[in-house]
Amino acid sequence: MMKHFDKASILEAKSFFRRDLINSISGYKSLNLIGTKNKIGQSNLSPFSQVFHIGATPPLLGILFRPHTVERHTLQNILETNYFTLNHVTADFYKQAHQTAARYEGSEFEATGLEEEYKLDFYAPFVEPSPLKVGCKLEESLTLEINGTVMVIASVEHLWVDQKGLLPDGSLDLEAIGTVTCSGLDTYYLGKKLSRLSYPKPNKDLEEI
Amino acid sequence: MMKHFDKASILEAKSFFRRDLINSISGYKSLNLIGTKNKIGQSNLSPFSQVFHIGATPPLLGILFRPHTVERHTLQNILETNYFTLNHVTADFYKQAHQTAARYEGSEFEATGLEEEYKLDFYAPFVEPSPLKVGCKLEESLTLEINGTVMVIASVEHLWVDQKGLLPDGSLDLEAIGTVTCSGLDTYYLGKKLSRLSYPKPNKDLEEI
Repeated sequence: MMKHFDKASILEAKSFFRRDLINSISGYKSLNLIGTKNKIGQSNLSPFSQVFHIGATPPLLGILFRPHTVERHTLQNILETNYFTLNHVTADFYKQAHQTAARYEGSEFEATGLEEEYKLDFYAPFVEPSPLKVGCKLEESLTLEINGTVMVIASVEHLWVDQKGLLPDGSLDLEAIGTVTCSGLDTYYLGKKLSRLSYPKPNKDLEEI
Repeated sequence: MMKHFDKASILEAKSFFRRDLINSISGYKSLNLIGTKNKIGQSNLSPFSQVFHIGATPPLLGILFRPHTVERHTLQNILETNYFTLNHVTADFYKQAHQTAARYEGSEFEATGLEEEYKLDFYAPFVEPSPLKVGCKLEESLTLEINGTVMVIASVEHLWVDQKGLLPDGSLDLEAIGTVTCSGLDTYYLGKKLSRLSYPKPNKDLEEI
């Protein structure tokens, strides 16, 4: 049985119901901890589920920051220093990752016990136990007029990935490195691989590769 | 063992390697089939992994369209008619969903055997077997100067969801409705729930809810 909502019934629903529902309808989301450090050396760590692909040549990522949320601390540090890190989350520390969203006054690394790691001369902190870590540099930010959402576009300056997830052609086996995915605001999942499929062409059967 | 890439080594890698790698680093992605119909009634269906949350009040979604790809057909129909649908994909038809990305001249519904469904008086076609279907209306589109990526922002006009996935507070159990997630360009996964966690507050233990 399918339940139907039209726009009016969504707008008439209680605000928590609408928030949870609309945050869930896009499907599974990526989960990354973003590490930053402000100008005076205070580190910050926060979970984000809206990181996406902008381009490969040059390598660019985008992140959406909701208006007026606790996550603005991360955005402020990025705009101030230009640097941040993305860190995949595994089942071993997804609860600590979730807890970093609490409104701490000091560093979320210290508060949650997640180990802060500095690599080469990169300004922003990485998450030590993460199996995939990206060092990013701000390229551009823009504000969506429709509701004040901010989009940050950043270049990939460094990437570290656990070799057991790196396939010969460059794609990643996220199940092998234990990456966690999320839905809505608070639900976490592991991925269970169905298959990898060949490039689709008309009148050609797909193969599992 | 962690493998390190800096920006120079990413840019020097073979283009297929760079494309597969950079498309994979954000983590698991949402997977939706987008259904459209052009002005003269030709339907179109294509898989997209870059749908994200813009806001709940009013309910808004965003979609990123890569520059110069086959997916522009979908974008063209949206800009021409203002309407499109999002449809979650399950393990029962993810191979057909992948196959819709082939360069067909006619409708991908016909070519892949996925059943086209029209609901109420909504202009764009839904995917009949999908457990979650969203009817969307174009609100705004903008082009990112950095590489020509187009961002479409749309309102949620209708939502149908299989009741077995709808929790009393509005959040969705994606495992219950069988939604598929993807990584990179061609790898598909089911979600296996770890847990749902309580709202994080400093000095308060998290609970599984």
